[in-house]
Amino acid sequence: MFRTHTCGELRISDINKQVTLAGWVQRSRKMGGMTFIDLRDRYGITQLVFNEESDAALCENANRLGREFVIRITGTVNERFSKNANIPTGDIEIIVSELHVLNAALTPPFTIEDNTDGGDDIRMKYRYLDLRRPSVRRNLELRHKMTIAVRQYLDKEGFIEVETPVLVGSTPEGARDFVVPSRMNPGQFYALPQSPQTLKQLLMVSGFDRYFQIAKCFRDEDLRADRQPEFTQIDCEMSFVEQDDIIEMFEGMTKYLFKEIRGVELEGQFLRMPWADAMKYYGSDKPDLRFGMKFVELMDVLKGHGFPVFDSAEYIGGICVEGAAHYTRKQLDALTEFVKRPQIGAKGMVYARVEKDGNVKSSVDKFYSQEVLQQMKEAFGAKADDLILILSGDNTMKTRKQLCELRLEMGNQLGLRDKNTFVCLWVVDFPMFEWSEQENRLMAMHHPFTHPKDEDVDLLDTDPAAVRADAYDMVINGVEVGGGSIRIHDPQLQAKMFEILGFTPEKAQEQFGFLMNAFKYGAPPHGGLAYGLDRWVSLFAGLDSIRDCIAFPKNNSGRDVMLDAPALLDPSQLEELNLVVDVKEK
Amino acid sequence: MFRTHTCGELRISDINKQVTLAGWVQRSRKMGGMTFIDLRDRYGITQLVFNEESDAALCENANRLGREFVIRITGTVNERFSKNANIPTGDIEIIVSELHVLNAALTPPFTIEDNTDGGDDIRMKYRYLDLRRPSVRRNLELRHKMTIAVRQYLDKEGFIEVETPVLVGSTPEGARDFVVPSRMNPGQFYALPQSPQTLKQLLMVSGFDRYFQIAKCFRDEDLRADRQPEFTQIDCEMSFVEQDDIIEMFEGMTKYLFKEIRGVELEGQFLRMPWADAMKYYGSDKPDLRFGMKFVELMDVLKGHGFPVFDSAEYIGGICVEGAAHYTRKQLDALTEFVKRPQIGAKGMVYARVEKDGNVKSSVDKFYSQEVLQQMKEAFGAKADDLILILSGDNTMKTRKQLCELRLEMGNQLGLRDKNTFVCLWVVDFPMFEWSEQENRLMAMHHPFTHPKDEDVDLLDTDPAAVRADAYDMVINGVEVGGGSIRIHDPQLQAKMFEILGFTPEKAQEQFGFLMNAFKYGAPPHGGLAYGLDRWVSLFAGLDSIRDCIAFPKNNSGRDVMLDAPALLDPSQLEELNLVVDVKEK
Repeated sequence: MFRTHTCGELRISDINKQVTLAGWVQRSRKMGGMTFIDLRDRYGITQLVFNEESDAALCENANRLGREFVIRITGTVNERFSKNANIPTGDIEIIVSELHVLNAALTPPFTIEDNTDGGDDIRMKYRYLDLRRPSVRRNLELRHKMTIAVRQYLDKEGFIEVETPVLVGSTPEGARDFVVPSRMNPGQFYALPQSPQTLKQLLMVSGFDRYFQIAKCFRDEDLRADRQPEFTQIDCEMSFVEQDDIIEMFEGMTKYLFKEIRGVELEGQFLRMPWADAMKYYGSDKPDLRFGMKFVELMDVLKGHGFPVFDSAEYIGGICVEGAAHYTRKQLDALTEFVKRPQIGAKGMVYARVEKDGNVKSSVDKFYSQEVLQQMKEAFGAKADDLILILSGDNTMKTRKQLCELRLEMGNQLGLRDKNTFVCLWVVDFPMFEWSEQENRLMAMHHPFTHPKDEDVDLLDTDPAAVRADAYDMVINGVEVGGGSIRIHDPQLQAKMFEILGFTPEKAQEQFGFLMNAFKYGAPPHGGLAYGLDRWVSLFAGLDSIRDCIAFPKNNSGRDVMLDAPALLDPSQLEELNLVVDVKEK
Repeated sequence: MFRTHTCGELRISDINKQVTLAGWVQRSRKMGGMTFIDLRDRYGITQLVFNEESDAALCENANRLGREFVIRITGTVNERFSKNANIPTGDIEIIVSELHVLNAALTPPFTIEDNTDGGDDIRMKYRYLDLRRPSVRRNLELRHKMTIAVRQYLDKEGFIEVETPVLVGSTPEGARDFVVPSRMNPGQFYALPQSPQTLKQLLMVSGFDRYFQIAKCFRDEDLRADRQPEFTQIDCEMSFVEQDDIIEMFEGMTKYLFKEIRGVELEGQFLRMPWADAMKYYGSDKPDLRFGMKFVELMDVLKGHGFPVFDSAEYIGGICVEGAAHYTRKQLDALTEFVKRPQIGAKGMVYARVEKDGNVKSSVDKFYSQEVLQQMKEAFGAKADDLILILSGDNTMKTRKQLCELRLEMGNQLGLRDKNTFVCLWVVDFPMFEWSEQENRLMAMHHPFTHPKDEDVDLLDTDPAAVRADAYDMVINGVEVGGGSIRIHDPQLQAKMFEILGFTPEKAQEQFGFLMNAFKYGAPPHGGLAYGLDRWVSLFAGLDSIRDCIAFPKNNSGRDVMLDAPALLDPSQLEELNLVVDVKEK
């Protein structure tokens, strides 16, 4: 037997017990004739004591232990003289009588502490050591707890988890697929699923009524920061439902998770904001509502007063930052630089301070009378000591997105984006289509099976770009944690949708035939959504990146540097797969 | 709103309620001026009634509904005149006042009934219709319940579910890997995991202590019956444990599952049978212990009496079939034919009946005196009316396997293999190595990380083929549902193991370097096991094949005939992947 207790378990009530513990040597220190060792396992740390006087040989052995050695000890639980209130086992220590080294350890390349001295690259190469750090392990414990809670909720609500295959067919109209050559079907390839979308719709055709799956999904995209080639979705679908049914069900799940995982009670209904409003008032389809600074449009107020920048603008809008009139010229210049960075791309920024006496002092005073500036103040509902920041541009959507970045930056600067405050909302009524400059045609914003809003169906013929969809995203603190839609179950409506998307009937049949055929055999009205598990866990964990809530993540080149994958194949393996590698010079 | 209730919900207590239901038309029949429709959803069937007299137009619409149409109706719950005790809703019917067709349906290519008229191929092509059959759906509901219960048990026991990656490196020394070309790393490939074996061992090095995962695994093997290229494991690993700790933990889980899923209380400890005994007494490493017929070896008794077949045999053994002396000559000839089939390969079978008076009458009476035959009877402990069946051969293991087939066949013929009786056992002490004729070397029977039994470690130098391992399988009713081992955590022992397996240190480093390196940084003693989820679900469901507990299985060529995958790739996709397909003529 390797242990009677874990390293997080013993308390003052265990005093005088003979115990056996096993774990890793966290640190070791000599004081006088005593050697103290912190023994660590997943459950905690327990202090071991070796006394040179009572057993010199044992103490000498203890002194030879290095960091991260794996040992087993037997000893007696003793009350500590100087207690450590910071750890649950801090009242006791073990007077060791037996010591066995289970495994030696090389000195790790970085310290196994929450504040480690290891950089990203080395931590990833030695991820198995990085995972020893309690902060990293806690993220994965949180992830485990979340999936347990998700399953509890959905099981209780009658959802069935169904595993869909990982070796599937290629799905067009999405991102790039990862593919898998088939040895048994020479020259042919499976694809890895970008999501179980079509399969879960087939399960609705099968009458499964309520389906979910915590499913691994794959996208062969050029990896931007915080993207992984494989990621995990909480994927859900329901039959005989309308948008409200789905929103209600998953608002319930969200509240359950917040309560179970974070101990937070979210009161009342989540706000539901039409996509058009989210863009208009926050310049984003995932507004962070932990703070205000709602956009105010100023075309009526500020255009036509002789300020050329505004006079030629298609959009003028701003935010009012409460109590920030103290911002110095230097700080304001820095903000101007911030919005002018290429990633944001604004041409400049106009600001105005509301002074103690109510007067407005702006950076464009020479073009505007105090009367106009007062109208502007009214538009914002600004008070004394507030700071007004204004952007303009010749493209409304682009300028709104710039203003969104400015708003988020002000939120950061003023500490309004507390990681322990959570504001959830639904963004609804997404546009059905978006124009693709690249493809020179309308593309499905969500996917081609998304149901248009009933009241907009007539617009499909006359003004498809104006059609809104029964599509919805759940947004928490400015992070899109999930989204979905009601699906089209009417074959005629689906055919029209493909037509608008530029599919010939033949091409639609070729690419979506199996789904369209299935729908001919009695498809129920249905809809669903999918949450990004990685993102949600990182939100709950207060992480900025999804990487640290994934056990073995890949780097930005899609490499697992620990496993050294991907790698070259054995030529015989390629031959079996009927493949020749032909890497072109670049 | 599509429904107020499901089709399985209404009872006599709901009479006179106005309700709305939605579902599929299971069947329709006209009787006099009435039309009856069985409306089906996942939850059950409810009878709808349309009365021509009270609403002729509505009734006419109802008469036009075809099988599998999706409809929504509103009506009043009514007590049935002739109740149907076979279904929970059989006391009531709905007098329909409104009918909406939500979707029409083509006539399905086979009947949506438990006893369908559809063959395997057509059911797989239209799997989304096949899944509508309650018997198939119930298998997937069972699978869902099992995974929920597995997680409940393991979570309670402190296991953390950790998702390991699907895009990993190739693992040698196993079956063939499926591979995934990397576009971002030209010419290089990921592999899909055959199991998370090495990653879960790394998690033990990381101190996760108790890990599990319900994990999709992949093997590119030529598919025999009942193999799938992707399958699901309940994968578990624990640190600071010995074999008994693991057996106890997972015996507990097994009992929990039997209780939760099947309502069966398994009493007492499972039997633990050394592999050598399993082979000696049942000719199998997964004996079905629902019935007896333990092998009896007869070399001492029957050899050297002039019967040439036995005199030249390396093995003579048999089973005693209780009360089967009534088997006719014709039945016994059929059994002889059975063991002589090429799949089994015995040369012949000797039989003996114990007559009412205790005399033994055998098919080889001319070679044996009644005295010898009585000795044989004693060896079996046979009684009057018992039937003794004997095989012999020049290879002990081969003959035992033949005798195993005969035993199982007798179990089948006598109805001793009841699908609702469950006998679980652990087969332990597997051999460490097995000789590979193909490779002309010792191969790891389990895998190269398996720990030899402490008492056999010395044999590694002198007689490696005799070394037993700390490896164990869980067997239920003759099905291996899971297995695992204690792993080697000592780098020196691991190095010796690689040496015996014929790896040079360089090759071992190349293939297992990341794991061996990790072990240098403090690996705890650890071990684990993995269950085959598909197989276990099919056992609980009483299925002969794993296929019907998988939502979208592949056929014996590894094809998904519904999705028509795998398929040819677009040439541009191949080019992006730096691949050329080169299918050789056969």
